Amino acid sequence: MLSPNNCSHSPQTRFDLVQVNGAWTRQTEQGQGAEGKLSHAKIYEKKSEHGVSWTVVSPIVFTYRVIQCQNLLDPSNDTLLWGHLGGEERKEAAAKSKPVKRFIVIDEVVHRLYGSQVLGYFESRDVVCKILPLPTTEENKCMELVTRILEEVHEFGLDRRSEPIIAIGGGVCLDVVGLAASLYRRRTPYIRVPTTVLAYVDASVGAKTGVNFAGGKNKLGSYVPPAATFLDRSFFQTLPMRQISNGMAEMLKMALMKHPGLFQLLEAEGRRLLDTKLQPVGTDSSGHEDSAAASTRIAIETMLEELAPNLWEDDLDRLVDFGHLISPELEMRVLPALLHGEAVNIDMSFMVYVAHQRGLLTAEEKQRIIQCMLGLELPVWHQDCTLALIHKSLQERLRHSGGSLRIPLPTGLGQAEIFHDMVEENVLSQAYEKWTNELAPSGTC
Amino acid sequence: MLSPNNCSHSPQTRFDLVQVNGAWTRQTEQGQGAEGKLSHAKIYEKKSEHGVSWTVVSPIVFTYRVIQCQNLLDPSNDTLLWGHLGGEERKEAAAKSKPVKRFIVIDEVVHRLYGSQVLGYFESRDVVCKILPLPTTEENKCMELVTRILEEVHEFGLDRRSEPIIAIGGGVCLDVVGLAASLYRRRTPYIRVPTTVLAYVDASVGAKTGVNFAGGKNKLGSYVPPAATFLDRSFFQTLPMRQISNGMAEMLKMALMKHPGLFQLLEAEGRRLLDTKLQPVGTDSSGHEDSAAASTRIAIETMLEELAPNLWEDDLDRLVDFGHLISPELEMRVLPALLHGEAVNIDMSFMVYVAHQRGLLTAEEKQRIIQCMLGLELPVWHQDCTLALIHKSLQERLRHSGGSLRIPLPTGLGQAEIFHDMVEENVLSQAYEKWTNELAPSGTC
Ligand SMILES: NC(=O)c1ccc[n+]([C@@H]2O[C@H](COP(=O)([O-])OP(=O)(O)OC[C@H]3O[C@@H](n4cnc5c(N)ncnc54)[C@H](O)[C@@H]3O)[C@@H](O)[C@H]2O)c1
Ligand SMILES: NC(=O)c1ccc[n+]([C@@H]2O[C@H](COP(=O)([O-])OP(=O)(O)OC[C@H]3O[C@@H](n4cnc5c(N)ncnc54)[C@H](O)[C@@H]3O)[C@@H](O)[C@H]2O)c1
Repeated sequence: MLSPNNCSHSPQTRFDLVQVNGAWTRQTEQGQGAEGKLSHAKIYEKKSEHGVSWTVVSPIVFTYRVIQCQNLLDPSNDTLLWGHLGGEERKEAAAKSKPVKRFIVIDEVVHRLYGSQVLGYFESRDVVCKILPLPTTEENKCMELVTRILEEVHEFGLDRRSEPIIAIGGGVCLDVVGLAASLYRRRTPYIRVPTTVLAYVDASVGAKTGVNFAGGKNKLGSYVPPAATFLDRSFFQTLPMRQISNGMAEMLKMALMKHPGLFQLLEAEGRRLLDTKLQPVGTDSSGHEDSAAASTRIAIETMLEELAPNLWEDDLDRLVDFGHLISPELEMRVLPALLHGEAVNIDMSFMVYVAHQRGLLTAEEKQRIIQCMLGLELPVWHQDCTLALIHKSLQERLRHSGGSLRIPLPTGLGQAEIFHDMVEENVLSQAYEKWTNELAPSGTC
Repeated sequence: MLSPNNCSHSPQTRFDLVQVNGAWTRQTEQGQGAEGKLSHAKIYEKKSEHGVSWTVVSPIVFTYRVIQCQNLLDPSNDTLLWGHLGGEERKEAAAKSKPVKRFIVIDEVVHRLYGSQVLGYFESRDVVCKILPLPTTEENKCMELVTRILEEVHEFGLDRRSEPIIAIGGGVCLDVVGLAASLYRRRTPYIRVPTTVLAYVDASVGAKTGVNFAGGKNKLGSYVPPAATFLDRSFFQTLPMRQISNGMAEMLKMALMKHPGLFQLLEAEGRRLLDTKLQPVGTDSSGHEDSAAASTRIAIETMLEELAPNLWEDDLDRLVDFGHLISPELEMRVLPALLHGEAVNIDMSFMVYVAHQRGLLTAEEKQRIIQCMLGLELPVWHQDCTLALIHKSLQERLRHSGGSLRIPLPTGLGQAEIFHDMVEENVLSQAYEKWTNELAPSGTC
């Protein structure tokens, strides 16, 4: 635990906090105080002629579950209702006599496809539930939608400790509901059920919630993880192909940043994974994991690895930011023409050229990455991703990263490094020229 | 660090997270992986025939400063500008060449009284600043005010890492700005400068932010502590007497719950502290702390002790909830006739009768507490605090505390206990009858 910095010479006392008979008391290390529960929090005190100053250091532990399962909406599967609890808690909760209540927010399109199944699930389990279908699209991703949810939640009435709000839908739905839940009574537990590939591999595993504001993407939000995320790939069956590609961009991101095996999988099988919408193929009675299962699992695992140690993004060196430097500007500019993963892929494609220009990737490696992207039917170039927009994005990022830019760049297939320097002007413009020459459809520029 | 509960028999693997060459990797305890930075976060993995489940346990450490000082608005005092930083960071920040920016939200009334001093402070230090005076009253304490602030902050432009938003005013101002800051870019640092006694001893030391919603007090909010709180008692000079009493109710709360010395101070000197508005009296060259300084310091210290180990209120056993069981209902009912501390005091006064009825306090102790309250010019009874409202409050609280009520009650002068049982019906009604007989102004009932 860090001890706060101090330049002044007045002595500083460190206090532990011990709970004795219900009251917390400060105790110095030397002091042999009463026995009791010791807190991880510390208080540092400094007295001077001008007054007293205290520094409070208090850790909060977030715990959440990410559960992969099949047949989430099958009434015989109790994950949707109780999966957020551990074994013991689950027994206790299920044993309570009062009726179980759940508030569910569901994307309107998903509701049309799965609404009756969702209703059937809760009805068959005698849950008092309210299902709220909402048009959770990127254009509607704003504070008004959060307020709308809050009003309905408030009217429905929930036990703030034991009745999580459930979000079923794409990343927009999960982000908006997460924000509403994190605000309600300063924190009401919520559950994420992603129904798009993008939400499955990305929006579902971290702590971020958010809405757009004043023309800026996700400008408002919070870092409050869900109580649990339930992952069921069968929702993908009803997704348009373009939405599958879209999500696979984020899988490719993790592959490029840190997992050669996942890259090889996507390179070799990307096309087939796309065609089968990441569904299990055939009946492999050997229990052997198919490549759809393997690739989504690795995507989740690598993402969790990067997010868990940096839940509140205090560390600015984030590999998962790859593809997210230029894409926010691009996305807000061309909305709704580009999907999130598509914008991310265009950003990654350009950065691959920057990495090559810097000598970090060979021409062959660059080529293989671009080919893999094309195999996943992802756009690798966009006319609105101009050099001016790239400059603006880098400047904007610099402004918000405490003065030093952090750019993750691939340094091979499935490995990367974070560079802290500004990309040199000539590297940027040469990369841009090559990128456009090689990838722009002929006739566009 | 807790290891998640699990009843199922599939084996669970615990992974540490180690950062090697910029990428986080999972390592089992047995595994002798590469050397690198070890995270406090852990991932527990369980595989079964149905799929994989991961439990993420990730601690976030909040660090904040609470600094008592004099002459906060004196340009020669650099606390307001740099006090949130430690010595080293402060030097670095001050050495940067780019202009320093600050966005300040100030209560309208406080602005009328201190606005020119605040402006003078920042001007004399060449700070690029925007001062936004707002009518931060209890009636306006809602999401619209938060949005208003966010729009202005967004237009002004801030470095999200290094340019904290400053709030100067009473508890309403601090709560509203705190919420806005915690939402902006998912977390922008903010600073609290309380100008009322209530905000000084209470709203300023914890992590809570909030606004009223749908007729409910502080129904929306977050738990994000400020980067720092700067405490300067000289603001109290311009407060109406009633506002001083109001704040002293929260000081009395801490005295009753856990500090006999503070209770004696308030009992013996309450009247004088009120008359002098908690200002230093005379010039005590001995450097000896006067009773105004001592009582506010103890109030802060005891409050910090209780809040630091429970910043996110995960533990429901909270001594600081004393006076806050009935008062939220009462407050929303009679707003704006009662101030927060007044409602709290009426709640405490009733609970003192409950404690006496239960045999926890002697008649004499009960009498001394009520006398002390009257000496502080606090209301000890209210006609709208009916037995029906009390019942409703207890029911409401029960609904939100996971099925077991937690009621802190005094068990002497300066000590307390938390009771987990529902107060017996007859104790409640007998206490209510005595309370009303003894304290209601004659003729009201
Ligand atoms: N919180 C995070 O960490 C995080 C991470 C990545 C992305 N995001 C956010 O997620 C959003 C993008 O998510 P998205 O790509 O899921 O978009 P989305 O939520 O807009 O969903 C895409 C479309 O698919 C439809 N849909 C969803 N599930 C379906 C299904 N099973 N069958 C048929 N149609 C279905 C939706 O109605 C919608 O029209 C962005 O706003 C982005 O900022 C958040
Ligand atoms: N976040 C927390 O932990 C916490 C704790 C306690 C209370 N609160 C909240 O604080 C609010 C009550 O705070 P409050 O009592 O400070 O009320 P307030 O903010 O409404 O201020 C009271 C009045 O005093 C005026 N004022 C402020 N400073 C002044 C000064 N120096 N001179 C003259 N006038 C001045 C204000 O304009 C206002 O009219 C409630 O909404 C309550 O929920 C929050």
